Amino acid sequence: MSFITLMTDFGIKDGNVGVMRGVIWRIAPQVKIADLSHTIAPQNIAEAALILARSAPYFPPFTVHVVVVDPGVGTDRRPIAAQLGNQFFVGPDNGVITYLLEETERQKLPVKIVHLNRPQYWLPEVSHVFHGRDIFSPVAAQIAIGTPIDALGDPIDDPVRLEVARPERTPSGWRGQVIHIDHFGNIATNIRKEQLGAPQSIIVRLCGADVPGLFRTFGELAPGELMALYGSTGNLIVSEVNGDAARRLSAQVGDTVEVVLG
Amino acid sequence: MSFITLMTDFGIKDGNVGVMRGVIWRIAPQVKIADLSHTIAPQNIAEAALILARSAPYFPPFTVHVVVVDPGVGTDRRPIAAQLGNQFFVGPDNGVITYLLEETERQKLPVKIVHLNRPQYWLPEVSHVFHGRDIFSPVAAQIAIGTPIDALGDPIDDPVRLEVARPERTPSGWRGQVIHIDHFGNIATNIRKEQLGAPQSIIVRLCGADVPGLFRTFGELAPGELMALYGSTGNLIVSEVNGDAARRLSAQVGDTVEVVLG
Amino acid sequence: MSFITLMTDFGIKDGNVGVMRGVIWRIAPQVKIADLSHTIAPQNIAEAALILARSAPYFPPFTVHVVVVDPGVGTDRRPIAAQLGNQFFVGPDNGVITYLLEETERQKLPVKIVHLNRPQYWLPEVSHVFHGRDIFSPVAAQIAIGTPIDALGDPIDDPVRLEVARPERTPSGWRGQVIHIDHFGNIATNIRKEQLGAPQSIIVRLCGADVPGLFRTFGELAPGELMALYGSTGNLIVSEVNGDAARRLSAQVGDTVEVVLG
Repeated sequence: MSFITLMTDFGIKDGNVGVMRGVIWRIAPQVKIADLSHTIAPQNIAEAALILARSAPYFPPFTVHVVVVDPGVGTDRRPIAAQLGNQFFVGPDNGVITYLLEETERQKLPVKIVHLNRPQYWLPEVSHVFHGRDIFSPVAAQIAIGTPIDALGDPIDDPVRLEVARPERTPSGWRGQVIHIDHFGNIATNIRKEQLGAPQSIIVRLCGADVPGLFRTFGELAPGELMALYGSTGNLIVSEVNGDAARRLSAQVGDTVEVVLG
Repeated sequence: MSFITLMTDFGIKDGNVGVMRGVIWRIAPQVKIADLSHTIAPQNIAEAALILARSAPYFPPFTVHVVVVDPGVGTDRRPIAAQLGNQFFVGPDNGVITYLLEETERQKLPVKIVHLNRPQYWLPEVSHVFHGRDIFSPVAAQIAIGTPIDALGDPIDDPVRLEVARPERTPSGWRGQVIHIDHFGNIATNIRKEQLGAPQSIIVRLCGADVPGLFRTFGELAPGELMALYGSTGNLIVSEVNGDAARRLSAQVGDTVEVVLG
Repeated sequence: MSFITLMTDFGIKDGNVGVMRGVIWRIAPQVKIADLSHTIAPQNIAEAALILARSAPYFPPFTVHVVVVDPGVGTDRRPIAAQLGNQFFVGPDNGVITYLLEETERQKLPVKIVHLNRPQYWLPEVSHVFHGRDIFSPVAAQIAIGTPIDALGDPIDDPVRLEVARPERTPSGWRGQVIHIDHFGNIATNIRKEQLGAPQSIIVRLCGADVPGLFRTFGELAPGELMALYGSTGNLIVSEVNGDAARRLSAQVGDTVEVVLG
């Protein structure tokens, strides 16, 4: 049994994601396919990189993750495939693997990356504007049926990496930034549990507000209250209980966040 | 062959639903998974309850329906699993099963409900904010591979039930309320075919308009006309032919509806 | 292994597409199902017809494509099933197969169309407002398990066809129109590669702008520039590099497009 996930900025109205399923199933009819997201903000590679890193570890070993957020489609940016620990990636070489690659390296798990330069594994006709259909889907299907990634292209060791903003120590605590705002308006920062630990009392300053923490669950304050807690993958988040913190604070990705230890 | 459905208020942009598929497939790689809806209005349990009740009966026997609309995540609200006739439910104990449970009881089909209190069936690490991933997905996968629900927790007989507004008789007909507005703007009421029968002529009063009925199909009036008819699951609905009745009438869930028998 | 795709104007919030999966799996538990789009503009048959024609050829042979964009549900418009080359279609007879049928005829591939008039292949109870669930899903599942389409109804040879606007020659080039605007704001026209060929230099006039072409890839101009190129299925498109051409030009489906050969 093999699995493929799809993440794109294609939206859901035009049928393009469905077509990718068709291409995959022609080559690998047994494969099960999950959507991760198709409403990544157009060409927002950083957002896709975060979602990939926190999603991939929950999938069965040897799942192939196809991520097509590709402002450079049709230019000379490289198409690549990668084995990162026991997960596979297929997509343009634009940095979207950055966080997952770093975590794989940190855990000293195997990393192998190839430049997809063997057209015999692609659709016979390759358009200049839809490599998701013409290159990445057939290659993902090949991996799913057991084709070794070495067969798909020449090895490389210089994949594009995003510049990642790291949180830094300050005299009173930590300074970081907003990296994601979810559907509920929860504000995720790049400050993580490994750095901050489990302090009893902190103040999180962002967008002119002082938000208390560190709480464990939404149930500890009344609806409408702001709180700081850890999100489901270990990042410090700011939430409004049963509300939308990002709208309330007009928070945006990139905003500065200060943590003051109490 | 086994089946799971997923319904949440998570939205579709953040990858959280995809992650649930990953967790399920690690445990139950054969299972097929369908989305019911992930754009339930945040924490709108009543809307999810309606969709669950009218969807579940169309699925194969022993399908597991996971519904995570969970304002109480991380509080002491109970996680539960239930067998309701030949369908299964997994999710927080927040009343979302109300309509499906009532229908199961009405048909005198078997009902069994357990409090999910055996962490050996969950992911090893359980976050305080994403039980959909850490508790409900692994439990659904367990049921799909044949684990009896008795094994998953202790039996309970007091699940939370929503207070359900019932339509009532009036001197001239029935009084009920709007319970759902669909994508097309069709306005669904809680007055049902079992109550109203098949009268030749009614007037439905809502939002200051008098809408004629009872029609059988949209084709009986011209585009732009308002009509009352039965929806696909037997509720009285008000529609605009090829138009959006809810927008035209500014109808909202909870609005009063009067049916005057002709 | 068999495959079904679903395309509707049902939206994604009400659970109606999920229910169709349930109906299909009760009859054909092995079938894999892909969504093409469920956010077709309400009752926009032409948009669905375009997406069907450019998607179906990428699916495995004998995939069944269910398209329910059905302003006439419950009227006397016919439900049909069709074999078009090696793909199958199920849905209302409203012209949505027009482009796929024309292409099948052009390639002289087999065409067979039946009027679905045998209720023994439908759900036992058929509502007047949801034939997607009650007629089209069970019929698609029947085809997926190998029921010949001749068994499902009587043959017809007069399916509804949309009136298709054809591009025409002008003294200086071609005149066509806008037929689709995608998620990114790319503007697709009905002028195709087979007509226009590969001229070195053209000007595309639409919405008061003169857009240069013919480019091969987005990478040939700077972000923010407008360009004309071929889309992934061979239609002439106008795009803004890393931007939204349709919003910038206020382009709409139906707008006139002039191509001036350089």
